[in-house]
Formats: sequence, C-alpha cells, structure tokens
Amino acid sequence: MFSASRYRDFDRGTVRCVRLELDPSLNPTDYPYAHTLRVRFAETDAMGIVHHSRYLPYLEEARVEYLRHLGHPYVELRAEGVDYAVLEVFVQYRQPLRFDEVVQVHLRVGAATRATFQMAYLLTVDSQVRATAVTVHGCVNAAGRPVRMPAWLLALGE
Amino acid sequence: MFSASRYRDFDRGTVRCVRLELDPSLNPTDYPYAHTLRVRFAETDAMGIVHHSRYLPYLEEARVEYLRHLGHPYVELRAEGVDYAVLEVFVQYRQPLRFDEVVQVHLRVGAATRATFQMAYLLTVDSQVRATAVTVHGCVNAAGRPVRMPAWLLALGE
Amino acid sequence: MFSASRYRDFDRGTVRCVRLELDPSLNPTDYPYAHTLRVRFAETDAMGIVHHSRYLPYLEEARVEYLRHLGHPYVELRAEGVDYAVLEVFVQYRQPLRFDEVVQVHLRVGAATRATFQMAYLLTVDSQVRATAVTVHGCVNAAGRPVRMPAWLLALGE
Amino acid sequence: MFSASRYRDFDRGTVRCVRLELDPSLNPTDYPYAHTLRVRFAETDAMGIVHHSRYLPYLEEARVEYLRHLGHPYVELRAEGVDYAVLEVFVQYRQPLRFDEVVQVHLRVGAATRATFQMAYLLTVDSQVRATAVTVHGCVNAAGRPVRMPAWLLALGE
Repeated sequence: MFSASRYRDFDRGTVRCVRLELDPSLNPTDYPYAHTLRVRFAETDAMGIVHHSRYLPYLEEARVEYLRHLGHPYVELRAEGVDYAVLEVFVQYRQPLRFDEVVQVHLRVGAATRATFQMAYLLTVDSQVRATAVTVHGCVNAAGRPVRMPAWLLALGE
Repeated sequence: MFSASRYRDFDRGTVRCVRLELDPSLNPTDYPYAHTLRVRFAETDAMGIVHHSRYLPYLEEARVEYLRHLGHPYVELRAEGVDYAVLEVFVQYRQPLRFDEVVQVHLRVGAATRATFQMAYLLTVDSQVRATAVTVHGCVNAAGRPVRMPAWLLALGE
Repeated sequence: MFSASRYRDFDRGTVRCVRLELDPSLNPTDYPYAHTLRVRFAETDAMGIVHHSRYLPYLEEARVEYLRHLGHPYVELRAEGVDYAVLEVFVQYRQPLRFDEVVQVHLRVGAATRATFQMAYLLTVDSQVRATAVTVHGCVNAAGRPVRMPAWLLALGE
Repeated sequence: MFSASRYRDFDRGTVRCVRLELDPSLNPTDYPYAHTLRVRFAETDAMGIVHHSRYLPYLEEARVEYLRHLGHPYVELRAEGVDYAVLEVFVQYRQPLRFDEVVQVHLRVGAATRATFQMAYLLTVDSQVRATAVTVHGCVNAAGRPVRMPAWLLALGE
C-alpha cells in the first residue's frame, strides 16, 4: 500500500530530527476532548499491570474517536486517500494501569505544520494522573507521499 | 504485585520531568549488541506495515536477549526481586517495517543514574535504517520501590 | 502465581479430551446478554481485516462484562482467590471484521460440570453474523488447583 | 482488499459446519516439522502466564516458517494473489507457557479438500506437552473468492 520511501520526505537529513515539542499538561481541563475506555485483561502482563506497549492502541483509539467527534471519521479520511502516518511517539508512564480500570484519555492537537501535527495526551483514572504522551503524525496520500494537512486539522493546531 | 505508588518516587514533582537524554546513533557500529527477529504477520496492520505499537515488544525482546548475553538473565533478576519498570519510551519511525522482514535491533545502555538507566536502539533491515528509539527504566523491588541499580548495570552506562 | 501442574488435573489422560459440546446458535435471541465493542485499527492486519487472534480478547472482554452484569465482577472473584483458566477455545470465522465496525458479542453459559463450564458466543455487526465461538473454562484457586464452581455460576448452565 | 463476501462460499448453509477433523497427536515424532520460538514478556498476562490469545500468532509464525521450509514462502504466495484465510481455530491449553520459555511448535498438514486444508499443532517445552491446536484454512484469491489449492499443498494432506 505504501512505497518503501513512505516516510523519507518527512526526514530532515540530520541525525537529530525529533519533532516532539509538546509538554502535555497534567490538568484535564487543558484538553478539549476525552475518550473513556476500560482496561482489558489481555492487556496486562506478568507484573500485574498494563504492558507499556498497550498504551499506544489506547492513544490511537482516542484519536479515532476525536476525529469522529469533529465530524471527520478516520474511515472517511482513509476512503478519500488521506492517511496519518505515525512519525514519533513518546510516552511517560507515571503510575501503572491495572485490569478493569476505567481510563480517561484526554487529548488535544498541538503544534502543526503544513504536513505534520502533534497531539498531546493525559491518561487519568478517577482524576489521578497515570501517564502522558505525545504523538507526531504526517499526512500522506495513498502512494505514501506527504500531502498538506486538511484545513480543518490545521485550524485545530495551536 | 506492585503498590499503587509504584512509580511515584521516580517523579520530580514538576510537570516537565522527561529524562530522555540519548540521541540514538544511525551507525550500527555504535552499538555493542544486536538482536535479530523476523516480523510476524500478526504484527502488521491494515496499512500493510507493522503497527507502531508493535515496536515496543521488539525493543523489550532485544533488552531481554542483551541481559542474557551479559550473563544476567531477566528471569533470574526477577527471581531475585529486582524488576525494571519502563518509565519512558520514545520511538521515531523512519521507514516502515513489513511482514517477514528480518530486523536487527541494535542497542546500548546510555546515561545511568543510581536508580534509572536509559537504552538507545537502532532498528535496521539489510543495513537500512527503519527506526530509532530510547527507553528509560527504573529499578524497583518486589514492593515496587525504587532500588539502586546493580553495579554491573551501572558500569555499562556512559 | 500458578504451579506448573496448573491444568493437569483437568486432563483425562487420553489423547482425545476435547470438552467442546456447544453448538453456538446463529440467532441473537438465543443469548441472554450482549456486549458491544468497536474494532480498533491496531487489531487489523495486512489483509485489511481483524487478525484472527484478536477475537479472543473480544470474547474475554464480553465475559468480564457479563460477570459484572451478573453482580460478580471478575476483579472481586480474583480477589477471593478464584480464577477461570481457559482450557479450550474454538472460533469459526464466517465473515471478516473490519476497522471501526461496531461488534455485538452475544454470549451465554452452556454445559457446566463441577469444575468446568462452557460459554457460547455469536459475533454480529448490524445483525449480520461474523463469527461464532466456544470457550471452556476451569475454576482454579490461587495455587492453581481446580475448585468447585460457585453455585451461581453452576446455576447458569443448561 | 477482500470483498465482504470473503468467507461466504466456504459456508455450507447449516448451523453446524465445523470442519475440524484432526486429532493432534501428543507425540512430536508424528510431525514432520517444528519451529522454535521464545516467549516474550509482552505475551504474558496478570496470571503470570502467556495469554491464551497469544498462542495463535505462534501457530501462524510456525506455518510461515513451514511454508518457507517447503520452498513456498508466504510472501511469494501473497504476491501471486493467493492467500490463506483462517476459517476455524481450535486450541487446547494443557499446561501454561511462561515468560522466556523456549517453545517447539510441531506441525503437519492434515485433511485437505479442493479449497480447504487443516493443520495440526503440538506445542512442547523440553519435550513436555503444553498445548495442541488445529487450524482450518481456505485458499482465496485477491478478490477473496475461494480458489483451488496449489497441487503441492494438496499433496501434503493425508
């Protein structure tokens, strides 16, 4: 579906090209949207807590629900040939998540450029901070080439 | 297994407490160890590439093999009551990974403090860079309290 | 948490000891409970459909919600030292599931013995059959030994 | 990639259309091939054992390696437009798998028809039986329609 050069055009040609700029707030009221989910048993590991890799699908699920809330369902965007490649991910695990806990994933769109945008996340359980995260995305077309972000998405940026 | 306060003592009490300090080299020779694995079909997603969350178990598997290579199998460490909590994760996706590709996960221990250490990773396929990553870990005892790092681990740091 | 002999006492000492007896109905009204979930992008594979392994956490999530609905939350059962080991799983994939689809997981308790019980499942999307499944479970204590099923669970069996 | 009717033509129009016919042997010498893998920490759950859903990717990885061993790599088959839809899965969990264990996945092709074939599996650790499984597959083309099995695959059947 995507050419091998898929992400290349996002690169800056230097070793250090981290784009992460956001500093996720620990205050839920700083986020315009929150998605609620419940931890599955299958997401725990032998330490008795949610495995650290399992947070990324939580963030993704929250992004999908936020896009739907904004009137731009991800399935429609994909049908139009626009996709959001994940370029960078950062997660800070502050308190573990456990089986059956109900997690609020707060999120907001942060810094945006013509072809990339960032999202900040705050994960809470009963108003207690559990994790923060930032993801950086690039808009690509069906051939995997970077394309300009839709205006509505650009407008969400800070 | 772990108290709810498990990670708390690693916190610095400020909003910004990112510990990531490493800048992973793109040169495989900068890493003392490499672990080889093959992409499973179950790890791909509907974009036809490896889902971004699936890189984290790759890093973990490489850490486990590196510890074994160093003569300190993770199962023994866990049996002794020492565990390595994941405090932070950063991944930069540069080129997608695909089903059946053979991935080299190069890694090295970076900055270390009394209770935390960082690891840097370079993922390559046929010497082509696919991703870089950094993880930050804290040593905890069976009660989830931070403990001093073993001397052999501290010695690996830069 | 469990001894190596955990499942042994459920065995019958013969090669053929399949316990599956249920024939899941394709009619949703034959099930007393249904749990609704939405397919995550992370659950799809490079065929563009939900990976077949991802159905098992769907069944598990439905079981957990059914127990809660019955007034016996799984976390409480686990806290009391009773766990439900999965002894057998059977899934029949009839139509693929896709990203973002809303799935109804219908389920019911079927055949029960003193130490095992079976559950039947029907997965539908917009009343269209997608899959059926059966799971066989054994009740074990904290030491991993089979124990008698709670009376309320036995009463649910056919 | 596949039409919504993908699996339909495999159906028999009856409620009961389980195709599972194999009875996996507990004797490793009954299998012509074995694939070795090591349990990842990410595959464990809060019971301290490998989550039951994680066995299915093990079976899949073993199938992929067996096809490669036979000179018919799955990526080539997919490039030629032939895919192997999973129609049914059955797993019997006899003894739990644990983190870091080295698992032998023994497998063989069993009953085959013009459009479907079955595979039997035996999972062992240090010659100790841990699980058995059967999967049923159908050959489909790029449009998701059932196609005849390749002759070399048919010849492997019993």
